[in-house]
Amino acid sequence: MMPQLSISRRTRSTPFTSRVEAAGVQAYTVYNHTLLATKFRGFEEDYWHLCKHVQVWDVSCEKQVAISGPDAYRLIQLMTPRDLSKARIGRCFYVPLCNPQGGIVNDPIAIKLSENDWWLSIADTDVMLWAQGLATGFRLDVNVTEPDVWPLAVQGPKAETLMARVFGEDVRNIKFFNIKPMTYQGVSMQVARSGWSKQGGFEIYVNDESLAGPLWDELFAQGQDLNVGPGCPNLIERVESGLLSLGNDMGYDTTPLECGLEQYVDLESDIDSLSLPALRQHTPERQLKGLVINQAVEIIDLNVYVDGQVVGQITSQAYAPKYGVHLAFVLCSLAQLNVSLTLDVNTSQGTMSGQITSLPFNFNRLGLTPTTPA
Amino acid sequence: MMPQLSISRRTRSTPFTSRVEAAGVQAYTVYNHTLLATKFRGFEEDYWHLCKHVQVWDVSCEKQVAISGPDAYRLIQLMTPRDLSKARIGRCFYVPLCNPQGGIVNDPIAIKLSENDWWLSIADTDVMLWAQGLATGFRLDVNVTEPDVWPLAVQGPKAETLMARVFGEDVRNIKFFNIKPMTYQGVSMQVARSGWSKQGGFEIYVNDESLAGPLWDELFAQGQDLNVGPGCPNLIERVESGLLSLGNDMGYDTTPLECGLEQYVDLESDIDSLSLPALRQHTPERQLKGLVINQAVEIIDLNVYVDGQVVGQITSQAYAPKYGVHLAFVLCSLAQLNVSLTLDVNTSQGTMSGQITSLPFNFNRLGLTPTTPA
Repeated sequence: MMPQLSISRRTRSTPFTSRVEAAGVQAYTVYNHTLLATKFRGFEEDYWHLCKHVQVWDVSCEKQVAISGPDAYRLIQLMTPRDLSKARIGRCFYVPLCNPQGGIVNDPIAIKLSENDWWLSIADTDVMLWAQGLATGFRLDVNVTEPDVWPLAVQGPKAETLMARVFGEDVRNIKFFNIKPMTYQGVSMQVARSGWSKQGGFEIYVNDESLAGPLWDELFAQGQDLNVGPGCPNLIERVESGLLSLGNDMGYDTTPLECGLEQYVDLESDIDSLSLPALRQHTPERQLKGLVINQAVEIIDLNVYVDGQVVGQITSQAYAPKYGVHLAFVLCSLAQLNVSLTLDVNTSQGTMSGQITSLPFNFNRLGLTPTTPA
Repeated sequence: MMPQLSISRRTRSTPFTSRVEAAGVQAYTVYNHTLLATKFRGFEEDYWHLCKHVQVWDVSCEKQVAISGPDAYRLIQLMTPRDLSKARIGRCFYVPLCNPQGGIVNDPIAIKLSENDWWLSIADTDVMLWAQGLATGFRLDVNVTEPDVWPLAVQGPKAETLMARVFGEDVRNIKFFNIKPMTYQGVSMQVARSGWSKQGGFEIYVNDESLAGPLWDELFAQGQDLNVGPGCPNLIERVESGLLSLGNDMGYDTTPLECGLEQYVDLESDIDSLSLPALRQHTPERQLKGLVINQAVEIIDLNVYVDGQVVGQITSQAYAPKYGVHLAFVLCSLAQLNVSLTLDVNTSQGTMSGQITSLPFNFNRLGLTPTTPA
């Protein structure tokens, strides 16, 4: 039985919480000290709906760490090994933030709003404290704050149609990972083509608490014929899409090079980044990989085995109904990955074997054909 | 209806979680990215049991931020406005941590283990990131880590008896807010007389994962005749005892001077603390106070009113069955507090009035006599 969640002022509610509750939220998690829905009708029902229609997600828990001032770029560059020196205004960048040992502190979207104004749209650690500590210690000329911004995601194949009805046709011109101020009820707010699914969509950085309810309601009113529904980051969809989750698949004790994020680490660059010296010296001994088990299983411990020896751990997992397979991310000894094509897991029906594969999953190459529900 | 909590690897389980579940936990919160039980038999039943007997609490969520090295004191002193220059080894100190604006970052217990080894036993923000940021920026000669330590609290009037049975008679000699290494099954671990209740007790800083289960089981086996039970920080007890909660009653936007913590701010000291300059200039315009309503009520919004005007907010509240009154902490305009002795609240039965009082509550002075349950 799933336990209950005690909600207090500390587990912050959002300007959308009353709508989320009225929409029948079944379960929450707590993310950046804020409520985040995890389930409405059920993981599978939510999944199929997201893949076919359009959902509205309260992702206020994606707090913005706003970094403003002449040293804004310098601070952000210290925090990430990704070269942002040529970043253009109005663009979004997925950036691992790493400590001087190369460990992952967070994996936000960095948004360059103007030359000296950046937002980090963060995952579940208090990046503001780290940024403030660095800014104070290095005596940087920046302001680091958490502005009153509550992102609302509109996700799914019909997201663009719905967004165009509410924000106007111009929203269609926003390219992937671009951000642009749009107007709602006379208030300018940033809108990006982004979101924590691979079904397409937008994130609206709502900056006026009094517009939160009306905007939610209007998305539902305008989207009735599109079968709009309430949603949230969906476990099945994000595992199937190979989207990593901080705290689950990576964290302080892993580096981007272990987690398949090497494309976001500019080892050759001459940027001033705290983690680059360590990352240049770092030879990964583990690697995050995909695991595919050709049936539904209930895995009863998170270890993965070769010849009965523990060689790694499962970090996330879900049954993927579209392909009829159980998918997992595993953080596994690289030495083992070089000699073995399969890993064993303990399930409620005994030991089963799964196929190791790269991430993101390439279902076509795996010979798996998508199905749709009856 | 209380929603469910989705548990993942990110909402860290602890070495005690299997015991907590077997003991019938009803609800959790998430605290420092870790599961924290909030209720076993019910808030009131848990409360009465805690006041009369002894409880074992999994408070692994009180993560330790370990600061070691020649600059350990210097870093900690930068973080807090409380003068720790004369701190003795083996002592615990309640310390507000404040940012350069004077806002409260955390309110840990600082533990001085040796001259260059401190632990901060933290509330619910990522203090490690702030400490690492400061240490990096100021180029301090320290190591800042989160060691594998899982505090287990033994709380209640019979706690000392139970602890003496498990750890030996010497545990009785540990004075309040002192810490001492004690031995369990041959392993040395720190034990402090402390805990997040005012019913007395100890916190065991369990440092060996394999001993967690056996220690929990032994406390229950040895405490059977003491009516030992599972427990957790109890909302009723902590409000009645005037214990503040970070994120509920204080946070980045409040200073210690607004929250009744002036005794932990050494304004006159010449210590090198980041927040002292701002705190010396700070004239509080709000104050955290107690509110007592002489009956059980269901408060339907968190504002408090004088003459129909909002003058503050309720930050925590609970019905106190021992006194038959509803208690609240309110963060209230100081100007109002100087002219009004009561505040109004909106309840499901209409507007009701409560008496403003100092914190912690002095029930004797309020003319309230404790009762025991039938």
